[in-house]
Formats: sequence, structure tokens, C-alpha cells
Amino acid sequence: VPLIGIDLGGTKLASALFAADGEILHRESVPLAGRGGEEVGALIVEQIRAMSEQAGLRTSGRRPQAVGGIGVAVPGIYRASTGTVWAPNVPGWDDYPLLDELRAGVGPDARVVIDSDRAACILGETWCGGARGARDAVFIAVGTGIGVGILADGHVVRGHAGIAGAAGWLALDRPYRADYAWCGCLEYHASGPGLVKVARELMDQDPSYTGELRRKASTAEITTADLCAAYDRDDALATRVIDDAIEFWGMTAANLVSLFDPETIIFGGGVFGPAVRFLDRIRGVAVRWGQPISMRRVVFTASTLGSDAGLYGAGRLALVQEPR
Amino acid sequence: VPLIGIDLGGTKLASALFAADGEILHRESVPLAGRGGEEVGALIVEQIRAMSEQAGLRTSGRRPQAVGGIGVAVPGIYRASTGTVWAPNVPGWDDYPLLDELRAGVGPDARVVIDSDRAACILGETWCGGARGARDAVFIAVGTGIGVGILADGHVVRGHAGIAGAAGWLALDRPYRADYAWCGCLEYHASGPGLVKVARELMDQDPSYTGELRRKASTAEITTADLCAAYDRDDALATRVIDDAIEFWGMTAANLVSLFDPETIIFGGGVFGPAVRFLDRIRGVAVRWGQPISMRRVVFTASTLGSDAGLYGAGRLALVQEPR
Repeated sequence: VPLIGIDLGGTKLASALFAADGEILHRESVPLAGRGGEEVGALIVEQIRAMSEQAGLRTSGRRPQAVGGIGVAVPGIYRASTGTVWAPNVPGWDDYPLLDELRAGVGPDARVVIDSDRAACILGETWCGGARGARDAVFIAVGTGIGVGILADGHVVRGHAGIAGAAGWLALDRPYRADYAWCGCLEYHASGPGLVKVARELMDQDPSYTGELRRKASTAEITTADLCAAYDRDDALATRVIDDAIEFWGMTAANLVSLFDPETIIFGGGVFGPAVRFLDRIRGVAVRWGQPISMRRVVFTASTLGSDAGLYGAGRLALVQEPR
Repeated sequence: VPLIGIDLGGTKLASALFAADGEILHRESVPLAGRGGEEVGALIVEQIRAMSEQAGLRTSGRRPQAVGGIGVAVPGIYRASTGTVWAPNVPGWDDYPLLDELRAGVGPDARVVIDSDRAACILGETWCGGARGARDAVFIAVGTGIGVGILADGHVVRGHAGIAGAAGWLALDRPYRADYAWCGCLEYHASGPGLVKVARELMDQDPSYTGELRRKASTAEITTADLCAAYDRDDALATRVIDDAIEFWGMTAANLVSLFDPETIIFGGGVFGPAVRFLDRIRGVAVRWGQPISMRRVVFTASTLGSDAGLYGAGRLALVQEPR
């Protein structure tokens, strides 16, 4: 029986029909194109129907076929107690009743499982990606924000209100700065926008810097990829920014290893991406800080599913609800 | 049916017979008195028999009665895959086959559950203590070392090799110092011995300090309780040491809240104890650093079971193995 996985992002909706072994039988992607509120709920229902149609085409015939389950990953927090979603990048989704909408749209008998993108990423990587089969693993997503998906003995760690894994708020550098109030210490220093912001601050403070990042028409154009490329060419300012970020990422990985004793730590998100080239150096930092026995055993790896990690995780959500 | 809980410490063995609701029906404590290796295993078997006898006396009659289960908390790491224990403070327990010893001693039909003291403390506090009924909770034990027991959705987080919760290794203060290599950054600064060591260093560096801590016959006599008492009397050096520790404890609590989103954080161990008076200030530090939604909801509390937390947790281990 095939499974449906739906991964809602900030700008697009990805859908796939999965075989039970994780093979993708069919996939589609639809831009959100400014949709908000109920329009997004309706789009998800529409895509579930499209995947069901595909399931019918691929098996007995022309009619939509019953599927084994439907998994939906959302870019924010899923509140299991109310079936509602908070997703800051989807207009009108402060407390959106997604579970009710999906049940109304696809029928009350369908098995629908919703979870956060963080949970989906670690489920995807342990189902079909770089940590296949692992029961204790952590996915570090570094992009616009920083969050972690955590699997402990095969179970996703969700927290009391579903917001476990808010690693962007990790306290790693004293003293406290007022700048941390909006996004957290780690995110301030070592998210994608954090890196660029630190680079801009250093450029403002140092008019004598005439390196390649100055040649951008404006500092607003600098990207993480630019910083990594300039680092590779020994640009002094980029080196300072990236060395600092490597220290923060390494301390973060060390703290996750000391607390969770995982088999694997997976680096993903838009920044990993270009920063994958620093994985050995990040491990080198982590080895100094972390619990030595756990550090010796843990594997550091880049996401092998990349931007599909959440989609695979949505499929894994559909496969079977975790036994509790 | 009564339950048996056994809590092995570094210097003594505590045993109790529990009713299923957590009431202690009988308890004993035996000093280890230099025992090591198999002698400690034999002592545990002896105490299990003594508790079984008590169970018989308390119910039908004179004969030892079958008990519902036997839980044993050990001061180190329990390796579930081999049934062996690493306990640095018990001579000869590098890889001690405790499960086999207990099965040989009390019979193969007895249900024996072994776990670390970290796991036992959080199970005890959520069974009978300050976090009763919580499914997401963290126990911070600050004493000679620093470790955390973690409950996530009712399940103990153990890690791949059973050493999750090694919070003494948390990286919280850049730059890295070679001193951290032996015990971890947090433990270096904010364990019981860490506080005293920092105080001694400051006294050595500052001959002009003539406060009350100087009046000790030797700096080797200073305790955490002395530091807390001197702090209460505005001693400048104690204030510096304790203020720093409060910052470290607050950052630690913040990181645990951001990662686990727990209902409750419980402070225990020998240092909490005297440092319980700083709980509000620790929370004040944590509120600045941690994920704001999680921080608003989480309850900070001192251990209500104190040095019995592990014993209650051993009883809870006996009650029923967690469903998996």
C-alpha cells in the first residue's frame, strides 16, 4: 500500500507518493504563490487527492486508491493536543486547525499524521538518508534559523508544547548581549543571516578592509556562499567570520553529543550547503568540548537528502505512527 | 504486590520496599565500607533478599514473598546490551556483569531492571517528587560532577551507549581552555569541586583579600556551603564565584529548556542543597537566554526527594518497564 508525504515549506508545497520501502513513485511541487490561511489547507487537500489518483494509476486502475497513510510536515510547530499549526511564514497560520481541515477534506477514515519539519528531517534521514536505521540521531538544520530534530531510541523528542529542538537559542558565549533577545545566541552568530550580519558589522568597523566582499555592489548582496568562497581564497574578513561560526557549530554539536549520545549528527539546511566543506573542522572543535566517549563514536555527516529530507520524513510519518 | 528499589551510591547501598503507589514500607542503608567487585554484587543480592523477607512479613506470613519487580540504580553507566555496569567509584566495576549476577542470585524469573542514577533521579521525581506526573522533565544533578536525567514524553533519554545527559561537558564559555579536557567546561566552572577550585584560584591571585574564607585553616577546607554562607554576608570573593556559577547554571537550564521544552526542571545533587536559595536568580539568567515560549511555561524547582531521588527512581524502575 503506497504512502503519501507532503512537505509544506515557506514558499512551496512538495508532495510525493512513496512505496513502503521509501522509494518515491511520483512527486510534485507547487509554489505557494502568496497563498495563506485556508487556501494553503485546500492546496494540501488537493495534493493529497492528486497523490491518491497517482496511487490508483500505479496499481489496479483508474480510481483513486486507498493509501496506507498521509504524513504532513509543517514549517513551524504542530500542537498535537489541538491539531493546530503555528507556521510563521504562512500567512494566517498562527493556530491553524490543519488536522480538522485535512479530515474534512480527505475523509475521517484517512490516517493523517502531522509533525514539524524538524521532526520530519530526522525521520527522513533515518529512514532513507545518511543515518538510515539509526535510533539515536540528531539533525542540525542551519538556514535562516537554526533548529534540531532529535531521535532518541527511535522516538522523536517533541517537548511538552511541541517546540523541543530550538537550538538557535543555545547559550554558548558569555556575556549576554541584548542582540540575542530576538533570535537566540547561536542563531545570532551562526545562522545564514547571522553570518552575513557579522560580516557586515566587521566591514563597517574596519574601513581598511579592501577584500573581495567589498566588491559587492552593496553589503546586502553578501551570501553565505560568498563568505565560504572568500574563505577558500584566504580573505581575512571571511576567515574571521567563518572561523567563529565553525567554533559555534562545533560547540553546538558537542553539546548535542554530550546530552543525547547519538550515533549520528547530520548537518543540513541551506548553510550546509556550502558549509559542508567545514565538517571536519567542526568535528575537530566538537572533539575538544564534548563528552569524550560519545564523541569518539558519533558520526558527523552532511544531509544526503538535502532539501528532500522533510519530504521523506513526511512519508515516514505516514508509514506508521510511532508506538507509544 | 510490593516492589524492591536498590540505590547503589559511591559509599553506601540504600534499599527500600515500595508499595505500588510509591509509599516506602521498609528501608535500609548499608555502608559499602571499602567493598568492591563481586562483594558489591553480593551485597545487592543480600539486600534484595532482605527486602523480600520484609515483603513476606508485611503480607501473609513468615516466608519471603514474590515481589512485583526489582529496580537497581547504579552510579555510572548501565550498558543494556551486555547487562554490565561502569561505575568509577566502585572498585572493579569497569564492566561489571551486574544483570547476570543478580539473575544468578535471585533467580532467573525475577524481573530485574537496572539503570543509571541519572535516569533513576528523574523517574523518582516524576513518580513521587516535585515533578509528579510530568512526562517531559529534566533533573540537573550538581555535586562532585554534573549530569542530567531526561524524561521525554515519558521515556528516559539514554543515548546510543547509555551515556546521554553528560551535561558536565556542556560548552558554555569561549575560548576553550585546556583545563576543560578532564571534566568538561560546565563541570570545571560550576560543580561543587569546581566552585571551590575557582575560589582557591581567586584567593591565590588576590593576596589583598582578607574576607572570611581566609579564616579557614586551609583553602582545602572550603565547601560549597561555606561559599553560599559567605555570599549571604556579601563577601566579595564568594560573590564573584557564586555570581559566575549562577550564570553557568542559568545558561545550562536555558539550553536544556530550549532543547527539551520540558514542563519542569528539577535541581538536585549535593550543591542543591545550599544553592537552592539561588533558584530564582538562576531562572532570571535562563529567561534571558532560553527559547521564550518554553521558558515562560517551564517550572524551576528544587528536588523534593533530595538524596532519596535515586532510591525512589529504583522503585519506579521496578514498577513496570517502560513500554517500547
